Amino acid sequence: MTYDVDHTQAFAAELLALDSGALGEADRIQIQSLILDYTGVAFGGTSRPWIVALHRWADRYRGPGPARIVASDIMATAEIVAFVNGAAGHSFELDDTHDASLSHPGAVVIPAALAVAAETAASGRDVMAAVAAGYEAMARIGIASRAERLIATGFHPTAVLGVFGAAATVGKLLGLDADGISCAWGHALSLSAGSMQFSQEVTGAEVKRLHAGYAARNGVLAAQMALAGIDAPLRSLDGKYGFLALYGDDPMPAELNKMGPNGLAIHDISIKPYACCRLLHSMIDGLRTTTNNFSATSEQIASITVRGPRKLVEQHMVRRPKTPMAAQYSLPYTVGATLAYGPERFDAFETANLSDARILAWADRVEVEADEALEASYPVHFGTEVEVAFHNGERRTELVLDSVGTPANPMDIERLRLKARALVGDRLSDAEFHTLLREIQSFPTSVDVSGLQKAFAR
Amino acid sequence: MTYDVDHTQAFAAELLALDSGALGEADRIQIQSLILDYTGVAFGGTSRPWIVALHRWADRYRGPGPARIVASDIMATAEIVAFVNGAAGHSFELDDTHDASLSHPGAVVIPAALAVAAETAASGRDVMAAVAAGYEAMARIGIASRAERLIATGFHPTAVLGVFGAAATVGKLLGLDADGISCAWGHALSLSAGSMQFSQEVTGAEVKRLHAGYAARNGVLAAQMALAGIDAPLRSLDGKYGFLALYGDDPMPAELNKMGPNGLAIHDISIKPYACCRLLHSMIDGLRTTTNNFSATSEQIASITVRGPRKLVEQHMVRRPKTPMAAQYSLPYTVGATLAYGPERFDAFETANLSDARILAWADRVEVEADEALEASYPVHFGTEVEVAFHNGERRTELVLDSVGTPANPMDIERLRLKARALVGDRLSDAEFHTLLREIQSFPTSVDVSGLQKAFAR
Repeated sequence: MTYDVDHTQAFAAELLALDSGALGEADRIQIQSLILDYTGVAFGGTSRPWIVALHRWADRYRGPGPARIVASDIMATAEIVAFVNGAAGHSFELDDTHDASLSHPGAVVIPAALAVAAETAASGRDVMAAVAAGYEAMARIGIASRAERLIATGFHPTAVLGVFGAAATVGKLLGLDADGISCAWGHALSLSAGSMQFSQEVTGAEVKRLHAGYAARNGVLAAQMALAGIDAPLRSLDGKYGFLALYGDDPMPAELNKMGPNGLAIHDISIKPYACCRLLHSMIDGLRTTTNNFSATSEQIASITVRGPRKLVEQHMVRRPKTPMAAQYSLPYTVGATLAYGPERFDAFETANLSDARILAWADRVEVEADEALEASYPVHFGTEVEVAFHNGERRTELVLDSVGTPANPMDIERLRLKARALVGDRLSDAEFHTLLREIQSFPTSVDVSGLQKAFAR
Repeated sequence: MTYDVDHTQAFAAELLALDSGALGEADRIQIQSLILDYTGVAFGGTSRPWIVALHRWADRYRGPGPARIVASDIMATAEIVAFVNGAAGHSFELDDTHDASLSHPGAVVIPAALAVAAETAASGRDVMAAVAAGYEAMARIGIASRAERLIATGFHPTAVLGVFGAAATVGKLLGLDADGISCAWGHALSLSAGSMQFSQEVTGAEVKRLHAGYAARNGVLAAQMALAGIDAPLRSLDGKYGFLALYGDDPMPAELNKMGPNGLAIHDISIKPYACCRLLHSMIDGLRTTTNNFSATSEQIASITVRGPRKLVEQHMVRRPKTPMAAQYSLPYTVGATLAYGPERFDAFETANLSDARILAWADRVEVEADEALEASYPVHFGTEVEVAFHNGERRTELVLDSVGTPANPMDIERLRLKARALVGDRLSDAEFHTLLREIQSFPTSVDVSGLQKAFAR
């Protein structure tokens, strides 16, 4: 399955040409939003036990810097920092999503970029171009390999695509040429792994958080190996034993060389307002309307029926989840958490609340139905219809195709700031948080990323 | 494809029980031979340009030790040392082979064990038990996943099996229990990668050397993550999306729980006297007999016909290899190198000699034929028949089923020492080399591995 056209080489050349001059005002604003969102989620992620453990692990690599681990006093080499900060960014089920590739680019690409940029003293503009290239790589390789089949086979898209995204991002920051980006991808191919087995077991699901970190780290390593002059195969994507052949299922290599309909993939990103699976977001927006902004009481409501893609019925109906991640994937629990706590109380999914009687009482009143029309429009839209039946006989129905945070219905900048502020919590004072915001705002004119690195420090 | 019996858990428990008390005298002697062989090959490997580049790369991780990078003055954390020393051990096409799993365990398991043992101050006996467990993991997972199909799909066995081997080895040294070993394997599953794309391109094949390093390193990381208490799936081998399902082809999970016919897999290892593909070794032994110990001249010989498994015809007949690795896989080139230089001049495969007219003139006189009987006995035997036709009309034929260095025809200890001495070359003085030998000899009574670590230093 090697193709006549060298799609790998053509894609590498295109990403190399994607420099800061190629980014328009809308691109820059979007990338700043993505960096802000990543930063908030990563700060929030540092409260999770596995990130606390990773901070302890990283302590042995402590050095003079300049790359910093978020919300810690640890400075270390880029590879270590990318690992821990990548895992932190994927730890709250609140990181951004590229729907068509079923992957989370921000949690992989941005920490890899910031860690390496700290070492190379790259300008803010160069970092933005490198980040855009990383999103592009994950998006297009995901589409070309048919992400929905990849995940059905059992490979985790964020993990197996992420290492290529991070390698492209870092390769640009290290000054590799197009052959160098291809070589970095050749090393990435030797490091592209991540199974969906976490979805099959009662415990152990938290390894998913590390998949973003493993990908970020291995992408940094892959680009460093290319820079060190260690050769690797150049047709790592469309070669006989390249990524598409090994991990894909009837892949579409020509998609590697096609820009998306909205231009750069950074414009096809959904940002999550709610700390649960992306597929449940339109349901929450539907609940908002049908329950008067979540104010209806359990005395008023008789039942809640949710209609949507078949996947809701098949994979999201665990009524008594045992771990935070299982809760974040449970439709009934998420309905209960939303009505009991409101949609933006991220702590509703914490272990301590998994047996909250109020949440579980709501959860028991939820039914789900597959809807053929919504199935047909998925995954272009992650749509849901919510029908609430009140004890007084009233019924209210709301259909939401594009939830808040999707490209069709984006969150405004103020809402993004509020989300980040809530996630950063007491890890930064108000003054420190404003310094962080200012550093991200000034990114297009920053001579380097040292200001943002300092804002990471504890 | 999750099986009723939890084969993963049963295998982890068996490897945990494999302690130094379970090793007999023959086991200990074999493990010492394997460590000696690894050490010589790794010292030799440090002369290759990619290992020189890796030494430079590792410089940023320089710390107070105690683990050391072979033939350098760099001390670093176990993960970094395992990476560089693993790649060095896989850099000369002279490292040991477990035939049934088509993998090279020594270059992965031993550097991971020695690097971590330096940090944990493990005894020589504990290191030997951990090494035996690592070989066992690579061997059995390779057999259960049908290594010959794994490689045909395009995954590189040393790479994708190695991370499980190193994780088992390191897990034992870090004191994990059986659930801990399973958890380390859960992380290993998220890090198990390595494609055969290197075999498809003119350049880039050297990434293969790094596959042993990537596996060693990621095995160390996987065990450290388990020790840090970060959960991962426990059925990483035979779960629905476990290793056998994702990478295998009609796998045989019950083989995970079966000891081999010769006992521990360490006794199914071939050690290479010659710096070329294992499949070409019996041919060299056949040439020895038919050419009076390689003394026949080009004036005397008209033609050389080699008969063997079909793979020789299909994958080993490049007559003008362009890189050292391609030469090491070329049957005609290897015949020429052997007759022009002798079989143990490892430099015959160096870039500078690839256009040597004497080698190429011999190569042009070589023909190959598939032999159905030898095909049928492969891979139990990597057998070859060599027929030499002399200008005086004489014909000599030699059939070799088990070449020197295979379990059926092992190298004696003196020959192992000579091989190591030749590979270590001028990187150690005679006195230093004898110190190294003594450290390996005293391993069964060593309280820790610090002596061997010091013998690595430059």
